[in-house]
Amino acid sequence: MIRIYNTRTRKKEDFVPISEGRVGMYVCGPTVYGPPHLGHAKSYLSFDVIRRFFVFSGYKVKYVQNITDVGHLVGDGDEGEDKIARQAKLEKVDPYEIAYKYECDYFKAMDALNIERPSISARATGFIIDIIEAVKEIVDKGYGYVTKEGNVYFDVRKYPNYGQLSNRKLDESVSGERIEVASDKRNPEDFALWKAVDDKTLMKWDSPWGVGCPGWHIECSVLSRKFLGDKFDIHGGGIDNLFPHHECECAQGDILTGDVPMNYFMHNNLVTVNGTKMGKSLGNFITLTELFDKYGPMVVRYFILMSHYRSIVDFNNEGLKTAQKQYARIAEMVKGIEKLASTEKVPSGELKNIFDACIEAMNDDFNTPVLIAEVLNFVKSANTIISQGDNEKAKEALYVVNNIIKEVMGLQFETKAEVEEKLDDEIDALAKLRWQAKKDKNWAEADKLRAILLEKGYTIKDTKDGYEIEKN
Amino acid sequence: MIRIYNTRTRKKEDFVPISEGRVGMYVCGPTVYGPPHLGHAKSYLSFDVIRRFFVFSGYKVKYVQNITDVGHLVGDGDEGEDKIARQAKLEKVDPYEIAYKYECDYFKAMDALNIERPSISARATGFIIDIIEAVKEIVDKGYGYVTKEGNVYFDVRKYPNYGQLSNRKLDESVSGERIEVASDKRNPEDFALWKAVDDKTLMKWDSPWGVGCPGWHIECSVLSRKFLGDKFDIHGGGIDNLFPHHECECAQGDILTGDVPMNYFMHNNLVTVNGTKMGKSLGNFITLTELFDKYGPMVVRYFILMSHYRSIVDFNNEGLKTAQKQYARIAEMVKGIEKLASTEKVPSGELKNIFDACIEAMNDDFNTPVLIAEVLNFVKSANTIISQGDNEKAKEALYVVNNIIKEVMGLQFETKAEVEEKLDDEIDALAKLRWQAKKDKNWAEADKLRAILLEKGYTIKDTKDGYEIEKN
Repeated sequence: MIRIYNTRTRKKEDFVPISEGRVGMYVCGPTVYGPPHLGHAKSYLSFDVIRRFFVFSGYKVKYVQNITDVGHLVGDGDEGEDKIARQAKLEKVDPYEIAYKYECDYFKAMDALNIERPSISARATGFIIDIIEAVKEIVDKGYGYVTKEGNVYFDVRKYPNYGQLSNRKLDESVSGERIEVASDKRNPEDFALWKAVDDKTLMKWDSPWGVGCPGWHIECSVLSRKFLGDKFDIHGGGIDNLFPHHECECAQGDILTGDVPMNYFMHNNLVTVNGTKMGKSLGNFITLTELFDKYGPMVVRYFILMSHYRSIVDFNNEGLKTAQKQYARIAEMVKGIEKLASTEKVPSGELKNIFDACIEAMNDDFNTPVLIAEVLNFVKSANTIISQGDNEKAKEALYVVNNIIKEVMGLQFETKAEVEEKLDDEIDALAKLRWQAKKDKNWAEADKLRAILLEKGYTIKDTKDGYEIEKN
Repeated sequence: MIRIYNTRTRKKEDFVPISEGRVGMYVCGPTVYGPPHLGHAKSYLSFDVIRRFFVFSGYKVKYVQNITDVGHLVGDGDEGEDKIARQAKLEKVDPYEIAYKYECDYFKAMDALNIERPSISARATGFIIDIIEAVKEIVDKGYGYVTKEGNVYFDVRKYPNYGQLSNRKLDESVSGERIEVASDKRNPEDFALWKAVDDKTLMKWDSPWGVGCPGWHIECSVLSRKFLGDKFDIHGGGIDNLFPHHECECAQGDILTGDVPMNYFMHNNLVTVNGTKMGKSLGNFITLTELFDKYGPMVVRYFILMSHYRSIVDFNNEGLKTAQKQYARIAEMVKGIEKLASTEKVPSGELKNIFDACIEAMNDDFNTPVLIAEVLNFVKSANTIISQGDNEKAKEALYVVNNIIKEVMGLQFETKAEVEEKLDDEIDALAKLRWQAKKDKNWAEADKLRAILLEKGYTIKDTKDGYEIEKN
């Protein structure tokens, strides 16, 4: 039985699906206006492993994600520019080009991390008709109001359960945060369902309230309902979106369908860098491309799984080095087992115990750090099998490799040739940099690069018309 | 000066952009209901190289493609099921899941072929509001009519220029083809702008004419106009879509904007397999995945470029083997030049002549077979440079490699390690198959596999508990 920590009830609960053998899952997708970063990896990896474990456990999963390509404003209080429109102005292109470019970058990074594609990836701009319908319905039911500026807001004071998810009381949320607030709101905590835009804005649509675009929160209510129905199993997202985004989704969903639509609300924790919050303005913003170049995507994947999805991941070199070492140990073992066995056999004895412990860890709210501890135990046992050349036991080990390490954890292993080639490329690049430094008469830099190469086990020798690299 | 064969005028014309230094390009995208095949590779590779050559020539290119995820019917005469809805029923999933799954497969194959992503990839379902607007406009202007069934058709008889692109006269197109035709049309050649759908259909929208979905042709008129304006430079697509699809686009565009919107209409030719048309029903339907497994995507890319985009590509093993050999020769040369030089120099002398001839070939309606002949000349010169170890000339050769072979042709080269690994995998797989055949006591099969391995230069030896592979 899978147990899930449900933010709605603040406790772990048995997972009971609405429809037997099926899971309907909605996870808030990215706002596509910049390169994918560590925060994306943490969130989408968390839910990828959760989805994988449901599939492993025999469920048919329908996993829906949105792409926010309009309506996410820079300010928190429904003020400020649209994030995509702002980026489009910066890059001097069509906002649709910005959205598509960063959507491609996002999926490229997710693919590299071996995160499976959603069953449906829905762009907000693709569902404006449904969004306008939903806003109309909320207004008609008396929970939304239209201002003379052409904005439509959700009237939070009319909905007494507002705060049910985040456990906030209205007065707290107002006094606790000083945010710039749109002046035509009845109350500062009201949130936009539809925003009027000016003529210069490129992404805009006609509506019963004039020309505008959707508010940020409504798209998720509309898309989850459209693809998963009035009531669905799991909603996932980052804890940073618990309030106001998910709180607003609960309110909207309740008004639209007569009940809060998701049975389980799951939240992944955040990413810190060397103990401090990651942020563009803080200068410690790490894109995934940078990290992939340095460690490769599979080490990043492994590193994130070392923490529980509800724990903070702190990115620091020490942690990544540990991940690198452990991942390499696992990779070495997988190679050994795959050499010894080509067919699987259901595990028995000690391997069965380890296998069961892996499942138990995952059944307990997807506890990947405990899973990893078991996998490291498994590596020891598997290495003994390898050293003994035990073909029969190797088949059982292959079962664990394929089911736990590859299917559930989603780890992939590069071939030896690829690893060596990568090393060669790095050495080659360093040697070229040194050569350039020398030509530029930047002797200090050239010496430093020579020392780095030496440390990596390579000696560089200058020749008449260039240089040669020798492995020590 | 780039010269383009313009289907609208049936002759080669100088390319004059609407806005200096810019190209607006629209290419009809795929209907996402099945795996990508050779026809996709031919079309999108043709326009990829065209786009690359514009970029190389200093143009800023905005390249827009649609994704048909609704409205493309099985029948030609606006009858029959929607292709995506039909596939959704077969696979028993949401039609949006079908569309997203095959869109992912499509782009995965295009990425493998090193076809650059469009600037904007627009799904038809994402622009229903714009489509309804356009249909309304056509009806209001008197060129569309609404039937009591809730369909809206373009009244072809009212538009005297119908047939201008395909050079067809109305009576020909009717008598020449026996197609099932929707019964509520005024004239059989009228085409659907909007189709009523029944309650069971999942992809449907409210409209002034009742619940329905767009006709297939209107999405391209709407999307090209939305992203490229009333008048744009180039429209591309397969010659199989010249009639009726592109003919209808010209008609719709003319009514909507007051003129036929694209200055140049470019058509790529088709794919045949061993001389016959490729088709699912003909049993010679080749998916790209199959072909990539056999030859690798870069050989497929090279093979397609060996024919001009306006010529038929005939897929046959002989042609692919030739492509494989020539590509390998080029790859070997590129490796040699890159070893010798790391900086570029503008070519002089003979290399300049070859470089200029490459440009000339591409300026002449993107003549890739002539380009390839020049590139093969270049390989000879470059190999001489390599054998002489001429570092200075190698820099000029590197310039040609980077600009022509990599940038314009879009060829990529695997690292040596990857090629060897791939070979190893194949040998390994053959050895495993043989082992299985032996265990199954299928001696004939085992002997055959041993012979194949021997032919590839490997001897297989049985040991006490398995086998060993030795390279001869």
